[in-house]
Amino acid sequence: MEEKANLLNTINSPEDLRKLNIEQLIQVSSELRQFIIDVVCNNPGHFGASLGVVELTVALHYVFNTPYDKIIWDVGHQAYGHKILTGRRDIFATNRRYKGISGFPKMAESEYDAFGTGHSSTSISAALGMALAAKNKGEKRHVVAIIGDGAMTAGEAFEGLNNAGISNSDILVILNDNNIAIDANVGALKEYLLDITTSKTYNRFKDKVWNMLGVFGKHSPGARRVAAQIEAGLKSSILDKSNLFESLNFRYFGPIDGHDVMHLVKVLEDLKRIPGPKLLHCMTTKGKGFKLAEEDQTTYHAPGKFDRETGVIISTPATDSVLTFQEVFGSSMVELADLNDKIVAITPAMPTGSSLTTLMNKMPDRVYDVGIAEQHAVTFSAGLAALDLIPYCHIYSSFLQRAYDQIIHDVALQNLHVVFCIDRGGLVGADGATHHGFFDIAFLRSIPNMVVSAPMDEKELRDLLFTAQLEKNRVPFSIRYPRGRGVYKDWKKPFEEIEIGKSRMLKDGNDLAILTIGYPGNTASKVINKLEKDNYSIAHYDMRFAAPLDVNALHAVFRKFRHIITIEDGILRGGFGSAVIEFMNDNGYSAEVRRLGIPDYFVEHGTQDELYRECGFDAEGIEIAVREMLVKIQIQKI
Amino acid sequence: MEEKANLLNTINSPEDLRKLNIEQLIQVSSELRQFIIDVVCNNPGHFGASLGVVELTVALHYVFNTPYDKIIWDVGHQAYGHKILTGRRDIFATNRRYKGISGFPKMAESEYDAFGTGHSSTSISAALGMALAAKNKGEKRHVVAIIGDGAMTAGEAFEGLNNAGISNSDILVILNDNNIAIDANVGALKEYLLDITTSKTYNRFKDKVWNMLGVFGKHSPGARRVAAQIEAGLKSSILDKSNLFESLNFRYFGPIDGHDVMHLVKVLEDLKRIPGPKLLHCMTTKGKGFKLAEEDQTTYHAPGKFDRETGVIISTPATDSVLTFQEVFGSSMVELADLNDKIVAITPAMPTGSSLTTLMNKMPDRVYDVGIAEQHAVTFSAGLAALDLIPYCHIYSSFLQRAYDQIIHDVALQNLHVVFCIDRGGLVGADGATHHGFFDIAFLRSIPNMVVSAPMDEKELRDLLFTAQLEKNRVPFSIRYPRGRGVYKDWKKPFEEIEIGKSRMLKDGNDLAILTIGYPGNTASKVINKLEKDNYSIAHYDMRFAAPLDVNALHAVFRKFRHIITIEDGILRGGFGSAVIEFMNDNGYSAEVRRLGIPDYFVEHGTQDELYRECGFDAEGIEIAVREMLVKIQIQKI
Repeated sequence: MEEKANLLNTINSPEDLRKLNIEQLIQVSSELRQFIIDVVCNNPGHFGASLGVVELTVALHYVFNTPYDKIIWDVGHQAYGHKILTGRRDIFATNRRYKGISGFPKMAESEYDAFGTGHSSTSISAALGMALAAKNKGEKRHVVAIIGDGAMTAGEAFEGLNNAGISNSDILVILNDNNIAIDANVGALKEYLLDITTSKTYNRFKDKVWNMLGVFGKHSPGARRVAAQIEAGLKSSILDKSNLFESLNFRYFGPIDGHDVMHLVKVLEDLKRIPGPKLLHCMTTKGKGFKLAEEDQTTYHAPGKFDRETGVIISTPATDSVLTFQEVFGSSMVELADLNDKIVAITPAMPTGSSLTTLMNKMPDRVYDVGIAEQHAVTFSAGLAALDLIPYCHIYSSFLQRAYDQIIHDVALQNLHVVFCIDRGGLVGADGATHHGFFDIAFLRSIPNMVVSAPMDEKELRDLLFTAQLEKNRVPFSIRYPRGRGVYKDWKKPFEEIEIGKSRMLKDGNDLAILTIGYPGNTASKVINKLEKDNYSIAHYDMRFAAPLDVNALHAVFRKFRHIITIEDGILRGGFGSAVIEFMNDNGYSAEVRRLGIPDYFVEHGTQDELYRECGFDAEGIEIAVREMLVKIQIQKI
Repeated sequence: MEEKANLLNTINSPEDLRKLNIEQLIQVSSELRQFIIDVVCNNPGHFGASLGVVELTVALHYVFNTPYDKIIWDVGHQAYGHKILTGRRDIFATNRRYKGISGFPKMAESEYDAFGTGHSSTSISAALGMALAAKNKGEKRHVVAIIGDGAMTAGEAFEGLNNAGISNSDILVILNDNNIAIDANVGALKEYLLDITTSKTYNRFKDKVWNMLGVFGKHSPGARRVAAQIEAGLKSSILDKSNLFESLNFRYFGPIDGHDVMHLVKVLEDLKRIPGPKLLHCMTTKGKGFKLAEEDQTTYHAPGKFDRETGVIISTPATDSVLTFQEVFGSSMVELADLNDKIVAITPAMPTGSSLTTLMNKMPDRVYDVGIAEQHAVTFSAGLAALDLIPYCHIYSSFLQRAYDQIIHDVALQNLHVVFCIDRGGLVGADGATHHGFFDIAFLRSIPNMVVSAPMDEKELRDLLFTAQLEKNRVPFSIRYPRGRGVYKDWKKPFEEIEIGKSRMLKDGNDLAILTIGYPGNTASKVINKLEKDNYSIAHYDMRFAAPLDVNALHAVFRKFRHIITIEDGILRGGFGSAVIEFMNDNGYSAEVRRLGIPDYFVEHGTQDELYRECGFDAEGIEIAVREMLVKIQIQKI
């Protein structure tokens, strides 16, 4: 292999890229791909998606005048190449690290990040806003949204298309079709895309025309000529004019090979000159250029550390053999489905992330993967519950926000027995601000009829999952648990019912009481044990439920204690601690309540431990809060 | 006209309907239509939508075995005929009245109401849930969703279609195409539907084929025969196989006349026998059979009282000539758009309800009606703001719930300058549980960066609208106001800035303090004046902002008062009062705070005054609360 001077190292902004000649883009693409592999193998992040759009990224910045022209990457985890080409090559190794760059486009980080994306399917709407703003101001900007076929199944993408189709503005939507979301893509749209890319309908129709022309004798020159002409007409009609996107008034182009960078440049140059809403259908391979990633796209969506040569994933040694909450959930769902044949599970495109794959493999009829479609997932669950099944609707906390209205209107208002398994509640770590599940306790506890629970450990998770399906508990029931490892090795205990709204006192005490909900109870427990050695006597309640509250326990606590600390891995405004002080106030108690949790700003990315520390509810933060309160108690006693 | 025995009066359930012969359905339809007119003219409710589906309603209950078979009416305001035929004829006059029947389908009200609907576009998802539940249980139920073309533009409908298309279950979606939502429908889908119903594309294509066949000489018998055969093939291909719904794997039928009840019965009988997902495209006229309603569909969507003969709307005499908050909003938006050319307004399908029609008529380029698509509305606004326009995104409070994630993820997280004009905040009256805007204060104040305000009167509404566009206030800014009449005749005062987070003290006092937010401040003010005459001295703060709170004022209040009442037209859990006690607690104050607002259940329908009373924050409720607290103060003094 001949040694060429490295081009990527000379590109400090797209301006530099645009100085190259078109042939050099092949080399740039190759270097960019290798750069992503080299960094991500050591510094875990999203992998497959960015490899799939290397050529597209290079071509877009080559053709469009960024940052004046606006490029919006739907679900920003495909934007690593974009970040590297737009002045962040040298800091790319800080990707997703505490105080480092974000794993998603972020307006505050770079003028090239036209719009922050982390949740899917927002790009067309945002792009349309920018296109119409530019039009309103008389600016000649191009606006491009790049959206995956997985993201296209969410309703907002359709709303965007439907509105763009009449806007008469120069918006270009690039459908990055790799036939996969994180897990295999589902839904009729997927089949439709497969159909138009493989031309099945067209071929069927062509055969029909040939048969009809048989009346003239198939081989007569007249028939051939007509056939050729009709074919030309049909091809544009069947494949283009009548396709789904053309129905919505987009001009449809493609499908084209998304890995041929020179061809991409030519096509984009052409499209730049065509006014109105346009959709370019681009075929790409997720994980392109890294063999194992191409072959196992789900694993290599965000593989963690791996060997850059062999691709073998370097698993962090789980010295304690503790499973994740996700694994415990997945395994427990199989037990529950065995136990109660009314139980079904629903996931919007996250079977692997949720560990519902375990149930899917054993009982495929009991799991519905609805694709990226949270609103549908919840109303669909309500429909299942209306005919007396018990749907366990599994959604990541931050994505559940997208189904807020459906939770209220379709489930809670009708008091339907839907169990919400809310995964990745609280601070999630490296995915950062867009993915933290901060708001769930606050927004769910305001909704009448809704049970809001959070387990402290694996056993409580299992027991809540068990409790939620009992016939006597036919109510909307939410169970919220964190991302990551649990607490014990020995988690698989028999299911036990937990009475709705019942807390457990883990420890009695005299000086002050700590009320926790969910996972932070474990940290609190350690701190309490430590302080015990200093002869402090601290009571600890694992409250389990933010709604309904355990009013008996709370009466006992407020009768006994004048000093109370609440701890939650959620937003403080309106959250669990707020529920506790509502109780205190409404029942005429008066106590000093210190609330620990997530403060009033959008916490960025980092490890979970770094973020707990930042928010002041890691072990050290809790200890400081307790000691400060103990000092006050001492002073008050004097 | 010959007198026939009334059939409708003999129908106490669909069983009775199914005993009739098919010809009699014409009479039943006519009687049903007249019955709706007779009742609704005196007892205001939704009108046009239900008239449009009279024949469809009769045909559905005739053909399907309800309630075993499930009929789901998307946006239930089309379901009056359904209610009348399913045992609620005699109580239909209580429609939308306090303690009467609901204006929407409601599971708790009747076994025939398969699913509660009030927010649009949920029916396909719910129907699919029921269809798959039936399949899971081995039950042979038919499930039918009836959805309007307006509701079809919302993303959730698309998510439902996309999922139904692969489900292989017997779901029938009836597209009730009347080419209007409440206001004229918008979007590419609308144009598409117009195209397929008028066969424009098909006709274009047919011409093309004829031209191509010209090589054979247009009039030769061979050419004609080929043309006829190709046409047959094309018709099914262009109109059916390749249409939008077929792309999503639905079998498409129609368009058919939705007012020919006998034909509808025959078609539905046929469709019953066809397995898999099917869409029947049904053309109807909103307001059918009532001339003025057919001609002015927006006005007669929910016209209030009207003369049953002439159709003339009987306006309730506004003796005080006070405008609604909506009218003041609409008028003020024109002034603001004149003042600041960066301002644009967005409405998801509610130009009339919002009064944005005023601005639309004067400056059509400054208003975007995006159709029923709240998620898109918010992200689109974020896109506009990203390029430095100032979008005023107007949404009804209960519909804003559908864009909760977009508010967080696309606006607040990016700290974009979007102004949310949240209409119909609080209890809305006769529309009831699905439409009350209870949750907004609670869910918005948890979101970092978001300004949460609520004006007490028209002047404050105007001043907040003015304040929100000032360059120095480039933050996400929400302004929440109630449905209905304002307070003054003389509302049109010059705009004045209100400092963000600044309350106003309306009255000082000594015994206790009342802190109000928004409209209930007016009621509180009256009560305070009344009690003043009894020599009580009550301070009143119009807090204006739930976030950021006016901490200076609150420090002053908590330093001075040990007894405080908060009042809000919103859910108590996590709401404004909760913010006040969070402040109290976090700042080490101790006071008795009584929180008035909406309790922890779904409040049903009635007049706004009836519902304020039920929740205890009408004048009487406030007075009782104040007097109870005054008594306690007296006792404590003793």
